[in-house]
Amino acid sequence: MSDARGAAIPETGGIANPPVIILIEPQLGDNIGKAARAMLNCGLVDLRLVRPRDGWPNERATANAAGADIVIDNAKVFERDEDAVADLNRVYVTTARTRDAIKPVFTPKGLAPELRSVVAKGEKVGVLFGPERTGVRNEHIAMADAVVTVPLNPGFTSLNLAQAVLLIGYEWWQAGVDVPDYQMLMNDTFPATKEDLERLFVHLEHELYESGFYRVEAKRPNMARNIRNIFNRSNLTHQEVQTLRGMIVAMRGGKYKPED
Amino acid sequence: MSDARGAAIPETGGIANPPVIILIEPQLGDNIGKAARAMLNCGLVDLRLVRPRDGWPNERATANAAGADIVIDNAKVFERDEDAVADLNRVYVTTARTRDAIKPVFTPKGLAPELRSVVAKGEKVGVLFGPERTGVRNEHIAMADAVVTVPLNPGFTSLNLAQAVLLIGYEWWQAGVDVPDYQMLMNDTFPATKEDLERLFVHLEHELYESGFYRVEAKRPNMARNIRNIFNRSNLTHQEVQTLRGMIVAMRGGKYKPED
Repeated sequence: MSDARGAAIPETGGIANPPVIILIEPQLGDNIGKAARAMLNCGLVDLRLVRPRDGWPNERATANAAGADIVIDNAKVFERDEDAVADLNRVYVTTARTRDAIKPVFTPKGLAPELRSVVAKGEKVGVLFGPERTGVRNEHIAMADAVVTVPLNPGFTSLNLAQAVLLIGYEWWQAGVDVPDYQMLMNDTFPATKEDLERLFVHLEHELYESGFYRVEAKRPNMARNIRNIFNRSNLTHQEVQTLRGMIVAMRGGKYKPED
Repeated sequence: MSDARGAAIPETGGIANPPVIILIEPQLGDNIGKAARAMLNCGLVDLRLVRPRDGWPNERATANAAGADIVIDNAKVFERDEDAVADLNRVYVTTARTRDAIKPVFTPKGLAPELRSVVAKGEKVGVLFGPERTGVRNEHIAMADAVVTVPLNPGFTSLNLAQAVLLIGYEWWQAGVDVPDYQMLMNDTFPATKEDLERLFVHLEHELYESGFYRVEAKRPNMARNIRNIFNRSNLTHQEVQTLRGMIVAMRGGKYKPED
């Protein structure tokens, strides 16, 4: 239940038996290559081609893989559908439309944790994609443990083959990484402390007063609050506070000394 | 703050001001066309091209759009980056690598609810993609309210342009639909009732007994339980129960009558 090749390559994110991608009767080498590229983007390396129209290897596939040579070079070609899935424990089939079959239906997002879970048990799984023009046939649906359908604009559901492969791979990869959906990128710098900010505000308010900015004394507290809100919203770093204070000093005709 | 054209086309899922996609210096018409196709897959219709290398319109783009003519025909071309975003309230920039800038960083999955939320307020938003080879430049990052980075295989992060557009569009569309991650597709039929199943089991167990299947009487209850587990796991429909009962009758040399 282990895959020596998979285990040996770091491209799979440390997974020994990542899901296999099976393309039935793929046509354009461009699409095969772009599918291979999308696979490697997502840590998938085992590509199987059943009756590729233009033969194999395929120059256009290699060119469009854009460096995903490990996928292209190790791709296997099969004559019969059954042989391409013979060693797999589970097969999932992508389809754009509902079929006349009693099957579990996953979204790519729902499939990903299912794949992670069965792969973690050591099972070998594959996701099968039908021919570009016609999609999978009913015999492929019958081979499958479950089908996968991408929720898309109902007025235009026809996905390019490589795009469909990407969406399966994308969700597979996302289910294995722990990246926050949102973060503030600070690089080498640190957020300003509240003391930094207070000194900036006091400095700014003083210079605004001195320069005659506050024409109506009664409006001054409210105006000062509004200005504080602007800068508090900006997630300023320590360095940016120093820059702003330098700007104030310069505009008031002075020369900034950081110890101010 | 409204977009008359957007409001008029059902392809956007009823959204009057769906996010705009901006491609800076796109090269191959193939990629522009596939990006347009991916956009329409996801209810996005407003494509803007800044200095497209091979001019516009582009035959290859139209061919690769595979019917997403509404996107191609309405695409706008700009000479200056600033003009392409001038009417937008917010701009998000996709980038593969961390930059030397203090910015919020979204994943596509994190960006989608943000986009939904600001679009719902009537704001006009855009997602900007840099040139294929080099990606966005620092000046584009500076134009942006936030950056978007797709978590991918760190050993191979280079995404095809159309694939990158697809992932942004995919998450945008998913954030607006309510499709269960997993469902059992039953089509026109209904799950069997527990009574259907009980009658099947009693029937099967009786015929197995009669045919001499249970060689060791002591093992019979356990074996019967195992067999019930197999069929209980199958989520049988009413029709499938009838089929199975017909199979039993036939194998025992009889002729099935549904009222049995």
